[in-house]
Order: sequence, then C-alpha cells, then structure tokens
Amino acid sequence: MERVEQHASFGGRQEVWKHTSAVLGCEMKFGVYLPEAAVRGEACPVLYWLSGLTCTEQNFITKANAQEHAARHGVIVVAPDTSPRGTGVADDPGYDLGQGASFYVNATQPPWASHYRMQDYVAVELPALVERHFPANQARSICGHSMGGHGALVTALRHPGRYRCVSAFSPVVAPSQVPWGQRALGAYLGKESAAWAEWDAVELIKTAPERLPLLVDQGEADEFLATQLRPDILRAACDAARHPLTLRLRPGYDHSYYFIASFIGEHFAHHAAALGG
Amino acid sequence: MERVEQHASFGGRQEVWKHTSAVLGCEMKFGVYLPEAAVRGEACPVLYWLSGLTCTEQNFITKANAQEHAARHGVIVVAPDTSPRGTGVADDPGYDLGQGASFYVNATQPPWASHYRMQDYVAVELPALVERHFPANQARSICGHSMGGHGALVTALRHPGRYRCVSAFSPVVAPSQVPWGQRALGAYLGKESAAWAEWDAVELIKTAPERLPLLVDQGEADEFLATQLRPDILRAACDAARHPLTLRLRPGYDHSYYFIASFIGEHFAHHAAALGG
Repeated sequence: MERVEQHASFGGRQEVWKHTSAVLGCEMKFGVYLPEAAVRGEACPVLYWLSGLTCTEQNFITKANAQEHAARHGVIVVAPDTSPRGTGVADDPGYDLGQGASFYVNATQPPWASHYRMQDYVAVELPALVERHFPANQARSICGHSMGGHGALVTALRHPGRYRCVSAFSPVVAPSQVPWGQRALGAYLGKESAAWAEWDAVELIKTAPERLPLLVDQGEADEFLATQLRPDILRAACDAARHPLTLRLRPGYDHSYYFIASFIGEHFAHHAAALGG
Repeated sequence: MERVEQHASFGGRQEVWKHTSAVLGCEMKFGVYLPEAAVRGEACPVLYWLSGLTCTEQNFITKANAQEHAARHGVIVVAPDTSPRGTGVADDPGYDLGQGASFYVNATQPPWASHYRMQDYVAVELPALVERHFPANQARSICGHSMGGHGALVTALRHPGRYRCVSAFSPVVAPSQVPWGQRALGAYLGKESAAWAEWDAVELIKTAPERLPLLVDQGEADEFLATQLRPDILRAACDAARHPLTLRLRPGYDHSYYFIASFIGEHFAHHAAALGG
C-alpha cells in the first residue's frame, strides 16, 4: 500500500492509495476520504462508492462534493477504480467494455476471466484492506452511479447482511435487457444468458433473502434513461417482489456529476442514519 | 453567443456559453450558473470567478461545488477561461505563460499585445455581455484562485466602485516580487518594471481610492506559499495603507480544489451579504 495523494478537505483528508490486488492481479488505486474523527483514529463506518463507465477513482472524489457530507456525518468514503488496469489486462476499444467498464462482475470468459473479478474486489478484498489499514468499523454501505449504480445494487443483493444501506444514482437496473449490459455480460459471462441473472438487480430482487430498502435517484432528462437505465423495470420488479424501493424521478436532471452533486447530501443523510455514523 | 452545455444543478442550471470576444479577437467560453430565481427571470447579483494557471472554464464549475452555495444565496456565478485561446493566439511551451496563463493583464508587448487583453475582457466586455443576456442586476463581486486570486484583487483595485465585494483563495499578491509574476509581467508588459505596479495588488493598495475590504484564505501546506504567494507581503501592505484585510491561514490545506471546496461556502456567504443576494 502506498499513498499517492493526500489533501486536507473539510477538516479531514482526501487520500488516494495504490496497492497490488491479489484478486485482480494488477495494481489498483482507490480514493479514501477520512473525516476528522478517522484522522484522530476513531473507528468510523464506511460508504463504498462505485463509479460509472470510463471513470477512474478520480471522478467521484473531484466532482461529487461527497467530502462535505462525509465530514458532517463522520463517514469514511472509499471510491475504487472501475476495472482492473494495466498493459497486461485485457481491453476493448469501446468505452463500454474492458478497462473502465468492468460492470463489477466476476468474469468467466476469455480473455476477461484472468483479471476481471471486480465483484470479489469491491465486496471482499477492498473492504478487508480498508478495515485493516484505516480506522474503519464494520458498518458498511454502498452507493454508485450508472454502471456503478448497477454495481451497488447487485453487490448488496448478492451479499445479504454485509451492507446496512444501499442507494444508487441513475443505475443500470436490468443489464440483461439493455444494450450496455447485454454487451458486457455477453463478453464477461458468455452468450448463455442464464448466467446473467445473478448479475442483474431485477432478477436478484425476485428471490432476495434480505429485503434491504433501495433508494434510487434518477434524472428525467437523463440521455440514457429510456435505452440503458429503465427505472420502470426496477419499479415493476420491486412491486412484484414487495421489495422496498424509494425511486425519485428528478425533473430536468441529466446523467452528469452535476446531478450527483445536487443530491449526494440526501444520500449521505440516508446512509448515515443506517450506519450510525 | 451559443450555449454549448446545460445541466440542471441544485434547482438551477449550470451552463457553458461560447462567443466571439471583440476585445480578445478570438472565440471564448465561459461557465454561468443560474440559480432558480434567475431561471425564472428574476434579476440576480453576479459573482465573477477567475481561475488559476492551466485552468479553463471547466475546472471551477466541475470541482468547487460553488453551485450549492450560489443556489442557496441566489447568486449568478460567471467563470471565464483564463486567457485568449486558439491556433492564431500567441502561446508559450511553459504552463505559466501564454494560453491558460494570462495573469488577467492587458499586454503591451509583442507577440502578446494583439490578443492578451484579459483585464478588459473580465472587467468590461464579459460583464456587459452577462448583463445583456442573463437576468443579472448590476451588483457584482469578484473572487479567484492563485493567478485568478491575483486577478480578482487587481481587477477590484483597478475599478473602484465596480465590485461590492472581493475575495481570493491562495492569491499571487505581489507578482512583481515572485517568479510566476516576474516571468508573466516581463513578457506581457516588458522588462521595464515600472509598468508592473498597476498590475500588482500590493502596489495598488498603497494608493487605492476605495478601501474595499479584502478576504483571503490561504492554506498553510500550500506548495507555492513561500515562493509564489507570500501572504505576508499582502499583510504588510494592508497594514501600511490601513487597507482592511481578513487573512485566514488554514493549517494543513494545500493549493488544490479540495481547499477551495472546503471554504467556498464561507466566501459565498461573505459575497452574498455584500451583494444583497
């Protein structure tokens, strides 16, 4: 573990760390915001943030203004990169496959299977690392945007009991049914679409053993709303399974970080209440 | 004037506009945040933000979280680019001269004099454009960071009565006495250092006809503190001239937007009180 950035921020510290991931077989970076209490060594709860297509660990930490709210609530925020990285890691010329586009699954197909185990990274290896190296307690929650919103929903649904709270901005809710998801799941998991169900939030909701409430914010002027995001499918799935969902459609808002920044404070308040932060 | 970006943000709109500047002789972009009242057509006061070396109109609008505070106080925020731009505009390989590094002066020396009239652009042409095209009243204030902090101080000091409030983050306060300023002023104004005084805040303070109070925030862990910024020189100049100054040294903070974001809310509250926003 090597610290590559450190900035005072809202009374705490925004840091970026580099480490070799055993799960992914490459070097990875992640951002970590430590509120003042954590800087003093007090154990704090941790919110994990999963970013969207093309992002690195930088986008969220520079654009969302999460630090203001993490400082207010005393929550550590961990923001990993969006895929394995490096010259030895498989990639694709498209922005929606390969590096920057892991979809947070564990790939089973060549050439992806050797590095693309992002689900195990974000759900297992990274939390263990964070809880060992920082003053983090075991109260965890997860949130994300777009591909990372899908990642947050799926990761929470796949790990009952592991997260106290989950929310998403503009998530891909049904990857099996939309072009981004079909392309990614087809490449990472194979054309056999039966394997996709365990990576699809609306499929997982049907039989979820834990009914952790979902909070979703979605801009109504989002350019990907009708083609890739489809919150209507999530609403129908939650209705059918009686899974608790708060879906807020926000008139005029698009897919950008301007949308995230506008409502991230409400998500932090929601997470902090569940985390006891 | 052409709108090239538009995003809902904190109940208002973050926009980016492109226009041909008569003063600069090139195409320019600027960011404008319109709080909800301005979107409805109500006249609002305007805060002008001047960015630092290497920035475009994007840095401040994506990283500072100014929109949250502008929305709260009902203030329009205008963030221009940091220099004239384009293939026909003189440039230099260094990051601290030429495009991205105007120092907000009116250049007199070749090859700069033909385009580098950024002082007239930010103080005259841009406000006139803003007050014509947006629901802006004539209550103006100005703020900036680093080279743009210098720009804010100098622009306010050179135009008594034009701004109701001025503040700066990590400003270059004495360009005549530090390497960034000596290189830029030497190139734009010539080696004759007598011409530099009218572009140097600590020189202008000596004889300022208007004693508009200065608010300055400066990080004590700023990597440029001792070599380029020198708030001690500003303090001495204000003491000698009895110019009102609030200088806040912030332990641990560096030169980055993490610093700006942490304290921009306090600057907005200060500006809003003066603007009647």
